Amino acid sequence: MMIFKKNNWFKVAVLGLLLIVFQNAIAQGHPRLVLTPKGVKEIKVQLGKVPLFDASIAEVKKDVDVEIELGIVVPIPKDFSGGYTHERHKKNWLIMQKAGVLYQILGDKKYAIYVKDMLMAYAKLYPTLPLHPQERSYARGKLFWQALNDANWLVYASQAYDCVYNFIGAKDRAIIEKDLFKPYADFISIGSPQYFNRVHNHSTWGNVAVGMIALVMDDAELLDRAMNGLKEDNLPPGMRDSDGGLIKKEGQKTGFLANVEEPFSPDGYYNEGPYYQRYAMYPFMVFAEALQNTKPELKIFDFKKGILIKSAYALLNLTNSEGEFFPLNDGQKGMSYYSRELVSVVDIAYLYGGKDASLLSIAEKQGRVQLDNSGMAVALGVKNKLTKPFIKKSIDLSDGSDGEQGGVAILRNKISDNELTLVMKYAAQGSSHGHFDKLSFSYYQNSDEVLQDYGLARFVNIEQKGGGNYLKENSTWAKQTIAHNTIIQNETSHFNGDFVIGDKFSSKKYLYDVSNPKVQIISATEDNAYPGTKMHRTMVLLETEGYEKPLLLDIFQVDAKIANQYDLPFYYLGQMMSANFKYEMPKTLEPLGKSFGYQHLWKEGIGKATDENTKFSWLYGGSFYTMTWATSPDDELLLVRLGANDPNFNLRRDAGIIIRRKNTQKTTFVNVIEAHGSYSPVTENAINAFSSITNVELVYEDENYVGVSIKNKNETVSLFILATTNSSATQKHKLEIKEKTYTWVGAHYSSTIK
Amino acid sequence: MMIFKKNNWFKVAVLGLLLIVFQNAIAQGHPRLVLTPKGVKEIKVQLGKVPLFDASIAEVKKDVDVEIELGIVVPIPKDFSGGYTHERHKKNWLIMQKAGVLYQILGDKKYAIYVKDMLMAYAKLYPTLPLHPQERSYARGKLFWQALNDANWLVYASQAYDCVYNFIGAKDRAIIEKDLFKPYADFISIGSPQYFNRVHNHSTWGNVAVGMIALVMDDAELLDRAMNGLKEDNLPPGMRDSDGGLIKKEGQKTGFLANVEEPFSPDGYYNEGPYYQRYAMYPFMVFAEALQNTKPELKIFDFKKGILIKSAYALLNLTNSEGEFFPLNDGQKGMSYYSRELVSVVDIAYLYGGKDASLLSIAEKQGRVQLDNSGMAVALGVKNKLTKPFIKKSIDLSDGSDGEQGGVAILRNKISDNELTLVMKYAAQGSSHGHFDKLSFSYYQNSDEVLQDYGLARFVNIEQKGGGNYLKENSTWAKQTIAHNTIIQNETSHFNGDFVIGDKFSSKKYLYDVSNPKVQIISATEDNAYPGTKMHRTMVLLETEGYEKPLLLDIFQVDAKIANQYDLPFYYLGQMMSANFKYEMPKTLEPLGKSFGYQHLWKEGIGKATDENTKFSWLYGGSFYTMTWATSPDDELLLVRLGANDPNFNLRRDAGIIIRRKNTQKTTFVNVIEAHGSYSPVTENAINAFSSITNVELVYEDENYVGVSIKNKNETVSLFILATTNSSATQKHKLEIKEKTYTWVGAHYSSTIK
Repeated sequence: MMIFKKNNWFKVAVLGLLLIVFQNAIAQGHPRLVLTPKGVKEIKVQLGKVPLFDASIAEVKKDVDVEIELGIVVPIPKDFSGGYTHERHKKNWLIMQKAGVLYQILGDKKYAIYVKDMLMAYAKLYPTLPLHPQERSYARGKLFWQALNDANWLVYASQAYDCVYNFIGAKDRAIIEKDLFKPYADFISIGSPQYFNRVHNHSTWGNVAVGMIALVMDDAELLDRAMNGLKEDNLPPGMRDSDGGLIKKEGQKTGFLANVEEPFSPDGYYNEGPYYQRYAMYPFMVFAEALQNTKPELKIFDFKKGILIKSAYALLNLTNSEGEFFPLNDGQKGMSYYSRELVSVVDIAYLYGGKDASLLSIAEKQGRVQLDNSGMAVALGVKNKLTKPFIKKSIDLSDGSDGEQGGVAILRNKISDNELTLVMKYAAQGSSHGHFDKLSFSYYQNSDEVLQDYGLARFVNIEQKGGGNYLKENSTWAKQTIAHNTIIQNETSHFNGDFVIGDKFSSKKYLYDVSNPKVQIISATEDNAYPGTKMHRTMVLLETEGYEKPLLLDIFQVDAKIANQYDLPFYYLGQMMSANFKYEMPKTLEPLGKSFGYQHLWKEGIGKATDENTKFSWLYGGSFYTMTWATSPDDELLLVRLGANDPNFNLRRDAGIIIRRKNTQKTTFVNVIEAHGSYSPVTENAINAFSSITNVELVYEDENYVGVSIKNKNETVSLFILATTNSSATQKHKLEIKEKTYTWVGAHYSSTIK
Repeated sequence: MMIFKKNNWFKVAVLGLLLIVFQNAIAQGHPRLVLTPKGVKEIKVQLGKVPLFDASIAEVKKDVDVEIELGIVVPIPKDFSGGYTHERHKKNWLIMQKAGVLYQILGDKKYAIYVKDMLMAYAKLYPTLPLHPQERSYARGKLFWQALNDANWLVYASQAYDCVYNFIGAKDRAIIEKDLFKPYADFISIGSPQYFNRVHNHSTWGNVAVGMIALVMDDAELLDRAMNGLKEDNLPPGMRDSDGGLIKKEGQKTGFLANVEEPFSPDGYYNEGPYYQRYAMYPFMVFAEALQNTKPELKIFDFKKGILIKSAYALLNLTNSEGEFFPLNDGQKGMSYYSRELVSVVDIAYLYGGKDASLLSIAEKQGRVQLDNSGMAVALGVKNKLTKPFIKKSIDLSDGSDGEQGGVAILRNKISDNELTLVMKYAAQGSSHGHFDKLSFSYYQNSDEVLQDYGLARFVNIEQKGGGNYLKENSTWAKQTIAHNTIIQNETSHFNGDFVIGDKFSSKKYLYDVSNPKVQIISATEDNAYPGTKMHRTMVLLETEGYEKPLLLDIFQVDAKIANQYDLPFYYLGQMMSANFKYEMPKTLEPLGKSFGYQHLWKEGIGKATDENTKFSWLYGGSFYTMTWATSPDDELLLVRLGANDPNFNLRRDAGIIIRRKNTQKTTFVNVIEAHGSYSPVTENAINAFSSITNVELVYEDENYVGVSIKNKNETVSLFILATTNSSATQKHKLEIKEKTYTWVGAHYSSTIK
């Protein structure tokens, strides 16, 4: 040992050699995907000594034993997601994979027998199957209503097969491969080119499914198909999927490598958003692990500057304080890093990403590990008390494979245990799961949504809600611009709600500066959502004197060639406390409009701004919130409630307030969002229940600058100035506002005076 | 010691003698209310050795030290609750009491000085005060907008004064008593007879306030006034308070003893409901403790067969699995046994109620104790590991001072960690805080409200919401029958919504039987809510084969002299999953009616029952729920949403479904409520998402019996028969239903067959 320590070059060289020799051996043996013979040996040595791993084994064993007791059930496919046959086949893939792993680790043959029997049953069923009877999908499967789920099945079944490969005799293997795996892999690739030959989370699953089974069966042709896509697919250009997403662009590369290359930005942001990144990360990571085990020469974890590991971090950063993903684009609220996919992601990122001890804190919260060497590495790290906290800082994640298609910025300010988080989206369209919400934002206090992003309109896997699939309201409401906290011009969604147009453009970052933790800024522009209209939104998470908590300053500048109507909605949760403007509540409720999502909003209140400042307060989750807008008497205020034209009650009855400016060419919306105080129904104490802001004023605006002042009831005035046309950090500026001269260096200036 | 153990009679006699001698001594010294010189000595001995007590001291010390640092602030009264002056004076009373206790226990003079200085400041201010400027209350205070809050102040200030009595010189005591306490006590009694001379939680505070200061000052006349009320009050009969409650009935006894005697039923149920019982329990219990310390000969804890201790248990039983009180009548949701009042109640009930170890488990959850001997006793019990679980069983709490005015039944069925709880109300009116909701119910799964009682329409202490007081919508909505899960005849509330009429009647128990934990029954009748209409509701928490969880069977029989319209609403939370009936969603929303709360409901959907069974499912808090009604095609179904005619957004936008039968004289509503399955947005698994019931049928009904069958998808049929006119447990019955003869003994029969 001493000799190695003193001669690291020697150690590396020797180990490297051993590794290459050994890995070639591994590639010829089984298991070889997420488990290897060597890895299994190492795990067996540690069994019973590493609590987190042992607990995970016990949990998995319990699940599998129950299913073995129930017996093998392989029904004829019939239902949508949520329905019996769907859920049964889904359970089969999950349990089969677990049983395979248990066989390897525990050595108990009953698990191998279970996997073998199930694969034999599938081998018998599969050749008899026509396309799945449900016809909704653009790419129907055979076991499931969509080929996507067929691919899910194969990703897991490959692992199960890999684990019991040696246990199953050559004769039965031949049957299984001939009747099941080969035609299965062909069907989801050659048989479903519109699904397989694409850059999309769906295709990632397809590519990985084919790649995994290729590795198990040592099928070079299949592996090439998985890695590089189909050479010929005969797909007509402009073809769309069931969600309206474009299937394939001209000259599009496909296959696994293209699916790593393109959707991830250099920062690891996945263009569809965190919900689908979570979904796709499992195949990305387990296949990378399998490739590392079988084809280490590929150095897959180094691909695109280590993008897979980076994307794991991006994903962990795209969560609120409870680990729930921000529901950007189509995202189901509540999905979090506690999901099984993220257990795999965190474990694999730990082992293959340099054993970052902060990942162990996430693993500890997850309370379980993947049953392979990555999971064992994590469990050992936890056992050896290496854990460090995973600290989420403010971050700006670029979008687009070149990082040049806008991005998503997350500004965080944590004071003791209280965290305020702004999520500002200035990204590209986000593929078929993208929403038309340029320059939109959501705002959190800890895990409470202060101002929400609606997320998707779907009850994933709940059969009685449209077969668990996307609901009509996802298109008519959730994707529309009005469903988001951003500007809508003339009651028409960005890009006219057209995916093909939207997919061509992205917003542009103007400034991201968090160098001063008390004045954190994201500023971005959007010139294409409405041709002829330039939009520039600047949001500042501002920790300043006289306030219990940081303020969120929102400056939204619009400049159009012609006069338009602008609506700027804010969707709050909880209950309104007070409003300082007059409004009327109609005797009967009518929808706000006819299309682009407006048809889903009831007009609960119609008012006019009367003061220089319009204030609106609400109570949610034991906290008070107040918005203070700099307004003019011409501004209309609309209190809206979701739920119109929603005959199946698919939408939540959430509330919003819209500020409307009619017949306006150029204007700036200025708003300050204040989180303050608390209320408990147990103590019945209302603490700091009122806004501390007495005035918000747009004190300066010209072609090059915008300035806003915020006055506190204690007379303190906070001033923020942004140079809107020069974001250089070294530029000197001089500006006179209200007979006072301000000079500074860099894109912005802020001060607080009394 | 040995001699005592062997001769208990001797021990008791000797101790008793010592006690009387000592207690007379106590009564002549200070402190004497919740602390005594002997008690303080005992506490001092234990200081630093009893974790729960020490933690409570530390917490209180922190609060008080911050306030001492801030200095004494005694502003001129101006605001409603939630406003600055209100909250400041409220904080003063709380901190003053704590500072007094700290002085006694820690012996640090700074606490005594703080209390003295504050009392002197109040003694200076009080004589200058007119009535409080806010005029809304039927009994205005001086420090506060209502005399009630003035009384709160005095209950706490008396304790503070008691603790520093010896510290303050006789001269200053004379000032404080002459300028502050005596006129203060006179004002809230003689000066406010409409407030003081009443049976109501308000008056309890008033009586106790006067009684507490009387004990400190040794003022026998004041004490008599507190105990027995004003001899003369010149109150006009029929006078009402601000909430519409009757002030005084003919021949009404008043004072503290009457306030113990009358509102409590023999089971300890307080007629206003648990929210107000919680509020009143603090003065009840601390004054009882003070009386026990000063006038042990009164044996106050034995009064009315130990009603005060009993009522503590009743209150603890009136909570859901998280310790939150059921919001019967005017009740703020979320109020729980974690409130400071319940800390006192639990501690005092423990020390004076026989040291029941199960109370320690509540105290452990509360995590703090009252700083007196009762708190020390609890903390010692916890330290010595005496804690036993507090198990909430099904319970039937009678209402009315004689226990003959109906009641509230709570049926609980707990299977492993999952508890289903029915709260069925068949009580009396409940004083001025009562709601018009005869035979209504609410239903819980753990702490989730499956079918809710709306509670009150008020944001207690939140100034911007009507000064933190009752909102108009409390009368127009929350108190009305339509706001509850019970029958409304002809769109008119029970008793025409008139308190005076409602106050004359109560529902009657027909049967409460929980002897079989699988078939728990509460059945009650109401003949006065609508003259000429008899109502009989039977609810059965039924654990039967073929279901994941127990079912709630609801049989509501109505028999009227003339044909009426009956509405039976069910207020669910969460999101509708499916409905098996056709309905239309109107293009514009209109209110359901014009009065009795109907004006607050929007008609979101209007349908007709088409099947024999009407089914409605929803998802809430990760659980699925389904109601299955036996219906006829004439039944109308209304999907409603709260919020119409609510210009200030005072009401939550909650949803309900109403089953409506028009032009009907005699009818029976049969419904089965099924909790089933689960959904997690993390696993995205929908488990057991569908109802298991294929048919609910009213299989038999005549003058004497009603029978319902529930058919499971596995063909199991559960049958329940109730003898509706003879609830005897020994009566033999024989009945033929569908050519099968059933014989049984007792009021009900149930079986399950396949």
